[in-house]
Amino acid sequence: MRDVAIIGVGCTRFGELWDYSFRDLVVEAGLRAIVDARITGEEIDAIYLGNMSAGMFIEQEHIASVVADHAGVASDLHTPVTRVEAGCASGALALRSGIMAVASGWHDIVIAAGVEKMTDVSSGLAEEALSSSADREWEGVYGATLASLYAMMARAHMKRYGTTREQMAAVAVKNHDNASKNPLAQYKNKITIEGVLNSGKVAEPLRVLDCSSIADGAAACVLAPLEIAEKYTDIPVKVRASAQASDTIALHDRRDITTMDATVYAAERAFEIAGVTPRDLDLAEVHDSYTISEIMAIEDLGFVRKGEGGKAVEEGRTTLHGEMPINPSGGLKGCGNPLGATGVRQAIELVWQLRGEAGERQVDDARIGLTHNVGGSGGTAVVHILSL
Amino acid sequence: MRDVAIIGVGCTRFGELWDYSFRDLVVEAGLRAIVDARITGEEIDAIYLGNMSAGMFIEQEHIASVVADHAGVASDLHTPVTRVEAGCASGALALRSGIMAVASGWHDIVIAAGVEKMTDVSSGLAEEALSSSADREWEGVYGATLASLYAMMARAHMKRYGTTREQMAAVAVKNHDNASKNPLAQYKNKITIEGVLNSGKVAEPLRVLDCSSIADGAAACVLAPLEIAEKYTDIPVKVRASAQASDTIALHDRRDITTMDATVYAAERAFEIAGVTPRDLDLAEVHDSYTISEIMAIEDLGFVRKGEGGKAVEEGRTTLHGEMPINPSGGLKGCGNPLGATGVRQAIELVWQLRGEAGERQVDDARIGLTHNVGGSGGTAVVHILSL
Repeated sequence: MRDVAIIGVGCTRFGELWDYSFRDLVVEAGLRAIVDARITGEEIDAIYLGNMSAGMFIEQEHIASVVADHAGVASDLHTPVTRVEAGCASGALALRSGIMAVASGWHDIVIAAGVEKMTDVSSGLAEEALSSSADREWEGVYGATLASLYAMMARAHMKRYGTTREQMAAVAVKNHDNASKNPLAQYKNKITIEGVLNSGKVAEPLRVLDCSSIADGAAACVLAPLEIAEKYTDIPVKVRASAQASDTIALHDRRDITTMDATVYAAERAFEIAGVTPRDLDLAEVHDSYTISEIMAIEDLGFVRKGEGGKAVEEGRTTLHGEMPINPSGGLKGCGNPLGATGVRQAIELVWQLRGEAGERQVDDARIGLTHNVGGSGGTAVVHILSL
Repeated sequence: MRDVAIIGVGCTRFGELWDYSFRDLVVEAGLRAIVDARITGEEIDAIYLGNMSAGMFIEQEHIASVVADHAGVASDLHTPVTRVEAGCASGALALRSGIMAVASGWHDIVIAAGVEKMTDVSSGLAEEALSSSADREWEGVYGATLASLYAMMARAHMKRYGTTREQMAAVAVKNHDNASKNPLAQYKNKITIEGVLNSGKVAEPLRVLDCSSIADGAAACVLAPLEIAEKYTDIPVKVRASAQASDTIALHDRRDITTMDATVYAAERAFEIAGVTPRDLDLAEVHDSYTISEIMAIEDLGFVRKGEGGKAVEEGRTTLHGEMPINPSGGLKGCGNPLGATGVRQAIELVWQLRGEAGERQVDDARIGLTHNVGGSGGTAVVHILSL
């Protein structure tokens, strides 16, 4: 198997982009990425595309074909395009699929992209789609939304570990603070603990500002075998590990809802492949779909001990210049969460950080980092480790 | 890269299976496959799942997680499961993804499965989902259904090559005849040319009996590196080639709507990889979503000259004991077309034929064959070549 590098990246703004259609979004991200990688369309051997719910959002399945067509690689080049889907982890899974395609030797230059068009659609559709990433037959039909499932995890975490609403709010405050330094983020406004605690109720104990937002957006990475990466870029970013794990889709079947076993397993596997430990990492982009998600993630990934996630955030250990910067981009909370795009955007943030191109939000001496993307309420987790 | 073999297969009946839920279907096919391969659940390294539209049909995305959970590999094993989607070509793309995973060395034992639950859902949903595999923004919103797009191809083919309605009907008659010998097929009734010509109008010149049907069903293959395949089975079936190509999603952007360029390109690539020509093949399972599709397919795959597909079928050259048996299973027309399952079912038919286990519909001396699966109106085509 060959080593794989990321040689170019591109990302749209995230937000309510009513002047962009689905196809506009993915093509804009893709063009930025190929310009960054200094490749031509003819050099692209295959495209992997993460998208959760174009069928529900814009009544369009077979979006791989839409993208091939609109990107101009369908009619002469007939470039193969493959859509992968795993709820909110669709983006990381597209990245993983692209990495596998290059590692295997099947393809040399591959685009791994993610896209979601969630705003400017029928009312209520986004909530319905989000809930369709959890167990429709055993949770959704009884009225459980995705937020309410995370609210149950939050309540259990508060009860068992003494995690407080203020500690959860501190995740949102930190991530908005980071996002204020990110030109592509949906939310650049700083917020306060009190602001989060007093924001509108969604599913107790989670308030509006505990939840990541519905957004439009797309993100794309160009992958190549490491051995030829220097032809395209001065700073190839190495893919050190890609790991994926599943868990039961329904919460009631889990051994413990304060831990995501899919995250634990994927992380263990990723650290094993990369030959590093959580202590070796300089930064991480983790799945903060809700504030409690980030607290559970940093515990399950091994950055802090189980139950100490809330305290670590409250003490500022995960800020941009803390001992372990988490979500320097602003995370899903600050950047917005266009489902299929998020996992790819996380990798792009690492690429910018490792290249030293993250501007005001640059983490000092960033040499190796991790991305963590979760599907639904934890049924799928995908972890990547990238380094210089 | 490693050579890959299919070491076990399993398939449900196809049809209106109102006593089977989505999860029942995929688990039944998977269990049959692992029994056939004599493996245990613990040995499965990864699962790739083809499904087009569970979001629209059963309001469930993130079905990889549903399947991991219901198959019993989520809570202890945390086996990674990945859904891929490319309209009606989702099944073949799952197979291709699984083959890549084994070929690359990332995984040893992989399940490639496909599933669709299309009946027993809200009225009109199946037609809407099918149309969502063509270009929603430039075709669907103006009222073009998938059948009407294929009707345009049929009209153009009739005009240019003199293909007749009787020749198209002969495809359906042959495929029902083959399906009458297939215990898992949805339609075991034989039909006549007159019956097809006089069946209800769908989109002229296509009648009801020119169209494949909406169905529930699932299919699964177990893949392994060829070098260890003999541990599991006496007759490993070798994957000789896997190829995929795209074309514009909208018909109006194609250079010629009587040819599917995605098929032409995928086939050329597959023949090149396998080092064989169309003449070397003993049989093929091709994408007969409409009768005109099979006529175009056998031309575009190189089994007959362009424009002679209709004549070849009419003359009986593609029957079970003709010079080039096409769709010995009964095809999409006879078996039914549960979208995500179809591409995997095609490969299973080849496996049974190559092993000599196809019963009454056994093709003589079947040693090497091809499968051909199309997404939407031809935006994606996937071709596999399998041999003893």
